Amino acid sequence: MWRQREIRLPGRDRGFHLVTTEVLDALPELAELQVGLLHLLIAHTSASLALNENASPEVRRDFESWANQAVPERAGYWTHTLEGQDDMPAHVKAALFGPTLTLPVKDGRLNLGTWQGIYLCEHRDHASGRTLIATLWGEER
Amino acid sequence: MWRQREIRLPGRDRGFHLVTTEVLDALPELAELQVGLLHLLIAHTSASLALNENASPEVRRDFESWANQAVPERAGYWTHTLEGQDDMPAHVKAALFGPTLTLPVKDGRLNLGTWQGIYLCEHRDHASGRTLIATLWGEER
Amino acid sequence: MWRQREIRLPGRDRGFHLVTTEVLDALPELAELQVGLLHLLIAHTSASLALNENASPEVRRDFESWANQAVPERAGYWTHTLEGQDDMPAHVKAALFGPTLTLPVKDGRLNLGTWQGIYLCEHRDHASGRTLIATLWGEER
Repeated sequence: MWRQREIRLPGRDRGFHLVTTEVLDALPELAELQVGLLHLLIAHTSASLALNENASPEVRRDFESWANQAVPERAGYWTHTLEGQDDMPAHVKAALFGPTLTLPVKDGRLNLGTWQGIYLCEHRDHASGRTLIATLWGEER
Repeated sequence: MWRQREIRLPGRDRGFHLVTTEVLDALPELAELQVGLLHLLIAHTSASLALNENASPEVRRDFESWANQAVPERAGYWTHTLEGQDDMPAHVKAALFGPTLTLPVKDGRLNLGTWQGIYLCEHRDHASGRTLIATLWGEER
Repeated sequence: MWRQREIRLPGRDRGFHLVTTEVLDALPELAELQVGLLHLLIAHTSASLALNENASPEVRRDFESWANQAVPERAGYWTHTLEGQDDMPAHVKAALFGPTLTLPVKDGRLNLGTWQGIYLCEHRDHASGRTLIATLWGEER
């Protein structure tokens, strides 16, 4: 089985957001896979995907604090500044956390650790929404 | 061919550890693939997987030194501190190095560069062990 | 359909380089896929692959500036220094940006965002060239 579809996520505040349920709700075919994989690409260069702790909002807030300190705005070495001071740091953060996730599927469900959830990492101050390309493939049940 | 199985790795000290042989020993079916891929997920949010230099223990020690400087404990911006001062930095390091690896297989072997080995990156002070979900798929020999 | 082949890229200056066209020119079979994926591995431990902004050379220059500040040469904690002061930082940068990319294919083309391009991130001062292992799989048109 192969499926590929676009998932449109609404605009969100800058920060790290848990989107596991939203992504899975858009992929009913996942239930048909016995063994397989789900690949997600975020089709943008200033937002990213990560897989991390799905319980505490503090964890996601601390991710944002760390990222802002590690990739600072207004640093003297930025030359690509025309699109706003949040733009170039957003590109670097996007590449660090990465634009894709590949996740195992078993018995019609994601086969993740108990505490793992999918993060949409929004690195711009104002984004109107983000598109994911989801690809599912594997053996049907 | 599709195979998915859990690999249980014993607890290790905080640091970067070469686990290529251990992972391959748990996957005898890899020898049956002519062309394919191996996907590994670490089912945890405070440890990660990386692919890097497989020869010098100094390299792995320097990874740990860099990570501790780049994601410091006791930084003022951490708010999720209930689980220990190593916990929140471990989450960030885990997302930076990443929870998955996808590796090409050819003629029954991983098709990597000469110097590439699989790292288990343990970011907690005390972990009792780590679970990998390994998925293999491709054309049989 | 499964295809796996080596792509040899010529030596490049240290920095972030857009190589989308070069990679696609080496993969004519991609046009035969209806739905599928392209996996790229860089078979080295001191260079990496990323997916980011494909328009402005300033963006790629700023990536290099950020990386040099975040993973500094001559830091006191490096112990693996025999291969040059650029070597150990190159290993860390390589693991941060990552050694692989997995990209969706649709209707015979990469299904990426408008602004996304493939970067070869060269982290050494003098590299004679880099090898990618490209794996393509999916449903034929």
